[in-house]
Amino acid sequence: MTNAPTATPPIIEFPKSWTRRHLLDLESLDADEITTILDTAQQLKTLTNDCKSKLPLLVGKTCANLFFENSTRTRNSFSLAAKRLGADTVEFSSSGSSVAKGETFVDTAKTIEAMGVDWVVTRHSTPGTPHLLSRELKCSVLNAGDGPHDHPTQGLLDMLTIRQHRGSIKGLTVALVGDIAHSRTARSNIWGLSKLGANVIICGPPTLVSPRWAELGFEVAHHLDDILPRCDVLNLLRIQFERQKARPFPSVHEYAALYAMNGERMRKAKDDILIMAPGPINRGVEITPEVADGPHSVILEQVNNGIAVRMAALWLLAGANQTN
Amino acid sequence: MTNAPTATPPIIEFPKSWTRRHLLDLESLDADEITTILDTAQQLKTLTNDCKSKLPLLVGKTCANLFFENSTRTRNSFSLAAKRLGADTVEFSSSGSSVAKGETFVDTAKTIEAMGVDWVVTRHSTPGTPHLLSRELKCSVLNAGDGPHDHPTQGLLDMLTIRQHRGSIKGLTVALVGDIAHSRTARSNIWGLSKLGANVIICGPPTLVSPRWAELGFEVAHHLDDILPRCDVLNLLRIQFERQKARPFPSVHEYAALYAMNGERMRKAKDDILIMAPGPINRGVEITPEVADGPHSVILEQVNNGIAVRMAALWLLAGANQTN
Amino acid sequence: MTNAPTATPPIIEFPKSWTRRHLLDLESLDADEITTILDTAQQLKTLTNDCKSKLPLLVGKTCANLFFENSTRTRNSFSLAAKRLGADTVEFSSSGSSVAKGETFVDTAKTIEAMGVDWVVTRHSTPGTPHLLSRELKCSVLNAGDGPHDHPTQGLLDMLTIRQHRGSIKGLTVALVGDIAHSRTARSNIWGLSKLGANVIICGPPTLVSPRWAELGFEVAHHLDDILPRCDVLNLLRIQFERQKARPFPSVHEYAALYAMNGERMRKAKDDILIMAPGPINRGVEITPEVADGPHSVILEQVNNGIAVRMAALWLLAGANQTN
Repeated sequence: MTNAPTATPPIIEFPKSWTRRHLLDLESLDADEITTILDTAQQLKTLTNDCKSKLPLLVGKTCANLFFENSTRTRNSFSLAAKRLGADTVEFSSSGSSVAKGETFVDTAKTIEAMGVDWVVTRHSTPGTPHLLSRELKCSVLNAGDGPHDHPTQGLLDMLTIRQHRGSIKGLTVALVGDIAHSRTARSNIWGLSKLGANVIICGPPTLVSPRWAELGFEVAHHLDDILPRCDVLNLLRIQFERQKARPFPSVHEYAALYAMNGERMRKAKDDILIMAPGPINRGVEITPEVADGPHSVILEQVNNGIAVRMAALWLLAGANQTN
Repeated sequence: MTNAPTATPPIIEFPKSWTRRHLLDLESLDADEITTILDTAQQLKTLTNDCKSKLPLLVGKTCANLFFENSTRTRNSFSLAAKRLGADTVEFSSSGSSVAKGETFVDTAKTIEAMGVDWVVTRHSTPGTPHLLSRELKCSVLNAGDGPHDHPTQGLLDMLTIRQHRGSIKGLTVALVGDIAHSRTARSNIWGLSKLGANVIICGPPTLVSPRWAELGFEVAHHLDDILPRCDVLNLLRIQFERQKARPFPSVHEYAALYAMNGERMRKAKDDILIMAPGPINRGVEITPEVADGPHSVILEQVNNGIAVRMAALWLLAGANQTN
Repeated sequence: MTNAPTATPPIIEFPKSWTRRHLLDLESLDADEITTILDTAQQLKTLTNDCKSKLPLLVGKTCANLFFENSTRTRNSFSLAAKRLGADTVEFSSSGSSVAKGETFVDTAKTIEAMGVDWVVTRHSTPGTPHLLSRELKCSVLNAGDGPHDHPTQGLLDMLTIRQHRGSIKGLTVALVGDIAHSRTARSNIWGLSKLGANVIICGPPTLVSPRWAELGFEVAHHLDDILPRCDVLNLLRIQFERQKARPFPSVHEYAALYAMNGERMRKAKDDILIMAPGPINRGVEITPEVADGPHSVILEQVNNGIAVRMAALWLLAGANQTN
């Protein structure tokens, strides 16, 4: 009468302090909430053999991906996270969907919810759409990227990766380098890292870094070499050519000369520097192959941690939905 | 040696009178058969907690979606119905498929069947294609829409929704309003509702309502206001701009003036009128937000009932395949 | 803590001689290895009721499809094979993926691997890409077609089909007819059949058959009628119009006159000739409906055997990964 595989005894305790039903951004979470997600992700990663085996915590539930921007990586990462915990998944996209027939975004989401799904994971080019959906839907909403605004699970997976290598984020100097203006990854990292006590440096060409960041109290740098020796972590953001209307710098070559992480710059960095990139990487632009494939790069660990934080988010939100 | 989750004791009795292996249209079903599907759908809906949890009736079986017209909603509704009953699903579509390499429609379907699937759910712009497939395949065929001809599960979910609110369909006055000419939903409703004893009114502009309906004995109306006070149910069909070659009315504004269900018309309707729409809805064309989101609207219940009737159809056809 | 459905006692013995972790082509396999795959496929086909029911040998594992060429049939055949053995599947394709954002093919594959998948099934227009991936990835790589080079599971399913009808491949005369130049199916068959002792004839217009085949010691024919009476098996390759830059013969009509298998030619063939085609077939080009639908045609059996050999490949490679 219920689900096929019967429930196993709890091997992971639901954190009683967790009450949120949606994951919309990192700006509105407090440090304890972020830490709860990271702790849960770490436990789930261990219990699933580095996110490779299944753990039937969410059997019988259904996760809907509702993506209005192209994505294979994030969409599949959410799908795999759901499947690893035993949930079913269903895919909606803008092409070939009812939106093309004139349906509103909210009507599309409500229709999907009416099919009986437990989570809607959404990506949209307009900032704030997940927040709008969270007010209209009864099921959980997860933001998988809303324009340049936020991408909370990306910020979380970056923080999980740093924690795995350094134990704690507090007191570390972390630089976000590159296309800050178009990067939701940057925003999620800035909020999340600050809350956990990191010293965040925002580094990029003046055309891609708003002066508002300095007004908000963040250190801003326009030359990577100026800050490099102090950095514990570099997060190298991809130049999002597809989001840029005008060219923000003279050429890719000049960008790389100032901001690309290469072997020469590695020699000026701390011995234990962590090199991160949200991917997909543009080899030869923000990072050279020598660095991307070198011993300091944790890029593929970030991908694996993406499954871990998404499992954690799905499980935590589902649990909050049951108890609230 | 067989399926992973073992079979549970029967919690739902297979209706012995059911013998059909295909669901092609509602025109060829009799009232008892339609009632059997609706009864089964209601039971499955209850057993799955409003189509939200799983019931392992069809574990080990595979449902293939073979869609030659764009669809996200119906395709996913069938997929979710299959998954809720424990079946696997596999997706075929015209883009990127062998049809583009010159394969015939029947060869494509036979190839899919040879992979070992139990049901082929198909949508095609040409009326009669599911009937053709049912003669060529040994597995079950379900029509998910064949051009403007029929869409039997849509008709069934509409009837299930009416029954849930009124107990019975017999004697109710149900108006189908709008683009009758291009609507398979209209045809499925007309046949299904008539068989169950409803008084069906066909309402729309003369350019979108064939005079043949009157010849067949149905009441035809060209002004919604003429029939509105008598109606127990309105089913507001979307104007299918994408199917129309010439413009069938002067403007959307003029269409809405005559046929849109709005707050003013609601005040002239019966106190307990049900407002239905197959979706996706065009807000401001056939329905205003005030009505779509109002207390008489059962649009999202229709979506949920779509899962229920599709679970019922898959289970009934599979059972008939085993015993015949 | 591990997978939901518990492991069943072994109902099929893992062949101790199998050590390969990748399936890249048939050219590099020896006769014993090919026979091991075919024997395993036959066992799995029987245990799954002709590939229709499930066998939980690979529960908890995940198969990623990474296709850079259009494919519905092969992609779904791999997906179904994985699902029949209890594995999860995840789909990546070039459209809408990170490759469009400038990511390299290897980086895409490594990212997918980092998500925790056990197999990457890949199709690419460039010969050798699966071999490249097998050197870069730790998980298993399966070639689902690399340009005109190889398509090992297609060759294996063709051989399994012949074996089911004739018991053994040794000593049979098998002609590959048609567009040899663009056909990876041809190459896989040529290597595989030769290793198992068949007499392979390569037949097609001079523009589509390289003179190198004769230099390599294979019999080459340019008129089907010259070799037809001697053939035990014909494998009729589709003219791959989409791969041809210049027209290799005057017209489809002239091609059909020389190479199409039709009723008249059937009367000149052996009484027990097997007619095979990798599909999708172009009715009226390489094969007439009379032959495609006739008693000698095993085209749909080939499709079913595709699931069987892919189940075998996934299981064997996974087992080799565990023990090596």
